[in-house]
Amino acid sequence: MKFTREDIDTDELNRRRALYGPLTAAVRELVDATIRTEVDDETIREVHATVAAATEKLRAKQIDGGFGMRFTADGESFAWGNAGMGLRNAIAPPLLIESDDTGLHWTEVALGAAYEGPPGLVHGGICALVLDHLLGTTASSVEPRFTGTLTLRYRRGTPLGPLRAEARIDRNEGRKTIVVGTLSDAGGVTIEAEGIFIGPATE
Amino acid sequence: MKFTREDIDTDELNRRRALYGPLTAAVRELVDATIRTEVDDETIREVHATVAAATEKLRAKQIDGGFGMRFTADGESFAWGNAGMGLRNAIAPPLLIESDDTGLHWTEVALGAAYEGPPGLVHGGICALVLDHLLGTTASSVEPRFTGTLTLRYRRGTPLGPLRAEARIDRNEGRKTIVVGTLSDAGGVTIEAEGIFIGPATE
Repeated sequence: MKFTREDIDTDELNRRRALYGPLTAAVRELVDATIRTEVDDETIREVHATVAAATEKLRAKQIDGGFGMRFTADGESFAWGNAGMGLRNAIAPPLLIESDDTGLHWTEVALGAAYEGPPGLVHGGICALVLDHLLGTTASSVEPRFTGTLTLRYRRGTPLGPLRAEARIDRNEGRKTIVVGTLSDAGGVTIEAEGIFIGPATE
Repeated sequence: MKFTREDIDTDELNRRRALYGPLTAAVRELVDATIRTEVDDETIREVHATVAAATEKLRAKQIDGGFGMRFTADGESFAWGNAGMGLRNAIAPPLLIESDDTGLHWTEVALGAAYEGPPGLVHGGICALVLDHLLGTTASSVEPRFTGTLTLRYRRGTPLGPLRAEARIDRNEGRKTIVVGTLSDAGGVTIEAEGIFIGPATE
């Protein structure tokens, strides 16, 4: 496990957010455009060369392996490489999870061309990514939990476009926390999810 | 559902593979570098501007929405936007699925920084993407099947790095096809999966 403490304060963290967030958003747009473009071959080759050169610039100095989980001097955590919500990860939609004081957790996200599976529909595995991430965050809202079992019932295809996922803790059974949730489009629920999350062993 | 017939032959399809495959690979490298770079702020801003300009070039002519499923004049299908295996999708690891004549289907893939969840581990939802994609392909190897229920049992964390997923059809029950599979690292199984896939209604 890769946990790193960085000797920075919240101001510096926010400065970095403002630097890396827009770069990541631009890379996310490039991923989408790479799928959807119909420009001529010459332009494709030109963009390929440009992207390779840009990557080489970024790789001039880089960390080994994944970003891991980092902490500021104030104890604030940031996992910017996370595939679900990482600020520096262009794969992440990103999933911004909100919650209220009743324990409901939710995320609203618009999934475009880069998340397609069957034609016009979100890939079933991307739906699983959204639900795993939301249910895991919900389960860990009190204390850290690890996924034990995740069950997804696909009621119908999930169309590309604006979606909402919701989850809440259903019950606790000893070390197990059972979380239930749904993924929905404007027409209602497309997938039902149940997750069993496991807490650390108590002594 | 977006199915498109393109009036091209296999030679033209292969020509396009050779054009778009390297661009996508370069974008995938950029996604990874965006997470791992430690270059100075000025270089980050410069790369941001370069990437935005490259995207604008690609967007000068593009399709609406997702890539969908396309067919050549010879009936060969290509779903190059697919989030699991699309040739033009930089999110896709990509997953190349192989099979033998015993019905075993498998994919070997190395997942790096862009697929991280907990520090040093693959995101549980990315593991779900790999298994959903593999089990769905396995279920559909005889005729098309849609995911009904997917159950994932997380036995331990899945480390970033080289992984292998395997699946096979366990049994058929009327319109249902039950597929079982695993995700493993060099040390053995990390996740067990079972999927119930549904075939089209017969008349």
